[in-house]
Amino acid sequence: MKLIIGNKNYSSWSLRGWLAAKQSGLHFDELTVPLFGEDWAHIKQSSDDLAPSHGKVPILWDGEAVVWDSLAIIEYLADKVGRDRFWPKADDARAMARSMVAEMHSSYLPLRRSCPMNIRARVENVQIDEDVRADIVRILTLWAEARARFGKGGPFLFGTFSAADIIYAPVVSRFLTYGIGVPGFAQAYMEAVWEHEWMQQWIAAAEAEEWVIEQYEMPVAD
Amino acid sequence: MKLIIGNKNYSSWSLRGWLAAKQSGLHFDELTVPLFGEDWAHIKQSSDDLAPSHGKVPILWDGEAVVWDSLAIIEYLADKVGRDRFWPKADDARAMARSMVAEMHSSYLPLRRSCPMNIRARVENVQIDEDVRADIVRILTLWAEARARFGKGGPFLFGTFSAADIIYAPVVSRFLTYGIGVPGFAQAYMEAVWEHEWMQQWIAAAEAEEWVIEQYEMPVAD
Repeated sequence: MKLIIGNKNYSSWSLRGWLAAKQSGLHFDELTVPLFGEDWAHIKQSSDDLAPSHGKVPILWDGEAVVWDSLAIIEYLADKVGRDRFWPKADDARAMARSMVAEMHSSYLPLRRSCPMNIRARVENVQIDEDVRADIVRILTLWAEARARFGKGGPFLFGTFSAADIIYAPVVSRFLTYGIGVPGFAQAYMEAVWEHEWMQQWIAAAEAEEWVIEQYEMPVAD
Repeated sequence: MKLIIGNKNYSSWSLRGWLAAKQSGLHFDELTVPLFGEDWAHIKQSSDDLAPSHGKVPILWDGEAVVWDSLAIIEYLADKVGRDRFWPKADDARAMARSMVAEMHSSYLPLRRSCPMNIRARVENVQIDEDVRADIVRILTLWAEARARFGKGGPFLFGTFSAADIIYAPVVSRFLTYGIGVPGFAQAYMEAVWEHEWMQQWIAAAEAEEWVIEQYEMPVAD
């Protein structure tokens, strides 16, 4: 398998695809392409690897099969290695996990636009508008419920590390970057994600990257 | 099981959840709530059934399990009745089906905003901007590839009726409502979807609805 991803410091969907590939336990080669700029424009137009997605990352190639969305990558890999590696076993827990993952996949545009992932940055005094605040409250509510009802078996949303943690990992990074105040249970959860071996590998790579994408660099508010 | 949906004429995600429930072959009770207006505001605030989603439809209740997104509903039901009822068997076909379903789930906002689903309406002379046109071209490209590579076994995207057709069914309705010109292969596909027994049931119910949602009614362009 070959996984094509973008800049590790900035590409939140790439992080999800990469964590999914790690979670599968399968061997995969990793190809990082720099998003934006002239290199990216050239790669996007000339790369057969990127053609199926019109240049979006992540993309997973598995022989003739190609999967170009990180939620689809999770499900495709779950098909390959067994659902239980990605999703909770109990129906009610899995129902909630699938729902909150789908909600992240289609929603929270205000948060995603106002607080783009930027792993190595720490931004102070960010101004947060009502829509972003509503997203944050909704996410914390979902985290609280998952942890309280289904989180007994470990420090993650549904106990052990699952698709839900994979999909919400970039949110953990955003909350840290923009100094979002969260209650204690959420701090503990975020620490567990941040200290996860794969996250630490990704963070180290993000910090070592030289690329800077100007439009993802947030000005500090007065 | 109990499926809560919105107005059949307007609620595109409800159509997807309902088709998924039909595709499962399982018995389900159906509860239609009118979106918008005072009734809706009241239902949203007072309904325990709608609490998990903050009032979004569709929602599927299965005993203690609750699923509140139509893609999550598809996957939850596929867990229950077997993946092959919803997804192509072959890896390369399923990879593409999962990817294009995920793309619909997270994308095409210009199309969704400019051309809201309105099953019983026929709108002439719609002005389509560049972003909407790009969405339409992308969708037609995906349909063409799915039909050409994997559609041999029937008239649907991957041959027999699958999750991909469930997710793109509201797009078929939009293309008809707004008179979007499409090539012959797409016309044939759209006819197959429109004539599907379940779609015919849904369309008849949509036409019989008395509710009119003003903001979904599109003014005809000059």
